[in-house]
Amino acid sequence: MDMICDLHNTTSNMGLTLIHYSASDWVTLHICKYLQTKITKVPVRVLVLDFPINDAYNLESVSKHGFTLEVGPQPQGVVRADIYVIMKEAVDLTIDWIHKFNSGTVFEGGDVEVFKFIKSVDYPRDPETRNLTAAVHPQLQDRDFCLLKRGDPLFLSFSGETVTCEEEEPLHPFFINEGAYYEKGIAFHLAKKWTLTVPSVQVQTTNSA
Amino acid sequence: MDMICDLHNTTSNMGLTLIHYSASDWVTLHICKYLQTKITKVPVRVLVLDFPINDAYNLESVSKHGFTLEVGPQPQGVVRADIYVIMKEAVDLTIDWIHKFNSGTVFEGGDVEVFKFIKSVDYPRDPETRNLTAAVHPQLQDRDFCLLKRGDPLFLSFSGETVTCEEEEPLHPFFINEGAYYEKGIAFHLAKKWTLTVPSVQVQTTNSA
Repeated sequence: MDMICDLHNTTSNMGLTLIHYSASDWVTLHICKYLQTKITKVPVRVLVLDFPINDAYNLESVSKHGFTLEVGPQPQGVVRADIYVIMKEAVDLTIDWIHKFNSGTVFEGGDVEVFKFIKSVDYPRDPETRNLTAAVHPQLQDRDFCLLKRGDPLFLSFSGETVTCEEEEPLHPFFINEGAYYEKGIAFHLAKKWTLTVPSVQVQTTNSA
Repeated sequence: MDMICDLHNTTSNMGLTLIHYSASDWVTLHICKYLQTKITKVPVRVLVLDFPINDAYNLESVSKHGFTLEVGPQPQGVVRADIYVIMKEAVDLTIDWIHKFNSGTVFEGGDVEVFKFIKSVDYPRDPETRNLTAAVHPQLQDRDFCLLKRGDPLFLSFSGETVTCEEEEPLHPFFINEGAYYEKGIAFHLAKKWTLTVPSVQVQTTNSA
């Protein structure tokens, strides 16, 4: 399969996030760059999960190119028109790019700002029961991709205490308080900003790669 | 049972809404009035479902007094600290009121603005499959308790058409796009604003009522 797009929703305030596994897949990065240029109503972020490919869990990992389109916030079992419209625009523009690429359009190279996955952070839990003892702090909730520094609030315990960030290095949290990740032991992931420089691409170049 | 509070969350942007079944239960209305005075961080609205009591579906309908505390928006399976804090404050203040009342405090009468349930509106659906053909319009989503007038947008169809309001009288929508109400055929409810005048209450007065 040449390309797969895996369409996802999240309860986190992720806006439109394009997630993929390789920092050297120029075709996918060019589509991300194209969507970043064309979509202006919401922030379009690119997230690189630089995992060994055997650890990949999204559908597009079985195709040569592609990404997961993650749009949120939206609760499970709810259709929000704003989220639907963003997803539709992103899918339409992806197909648009493919048509242009297959027709011989040259896409110029340049820089793409991406977020690179670093680590996951779990909720504070009771050591015996494993039940949560705190929720994501109101000052962190909905602030996906903000810059999180040492001392910033992370969690608010159910008895009212604030748990703060102890990371040495400022990092960017994402998938903050995603409903499906409680059972996985993930309150949020942390990422680092990174600039990738992509070369110009054209259909023949890709075929010979 | 003298009093029950039924604690609920919703995917709708309901803030803190106090729901009960009787426009003549002065004890419950006084607690609502007390919460409206004390809680200033979020709007506190009172909703009267003036149903025949046999149609009542909330837990407090089996007690002499009480209400449902409805707080949102929060997705299913997610704990939001802001929602948790609002709920805790409302429960603490309710217990506070009961202690004061039982200690003989006189609560002065006055006006309470409430919303009275009028009717429910379903999503546009395919007449044969009953599948949705539209979502709540982005201009209505999250605007619970706004004033909805004839011609205002209600739904955005999946092919891009806007469905507008045809009500003769301006009304207030609530429980807009609640996840649990798709299966009940409810996109939102409509209410009318209403001012109730409650008399002063004191513990002996209530006992003789």
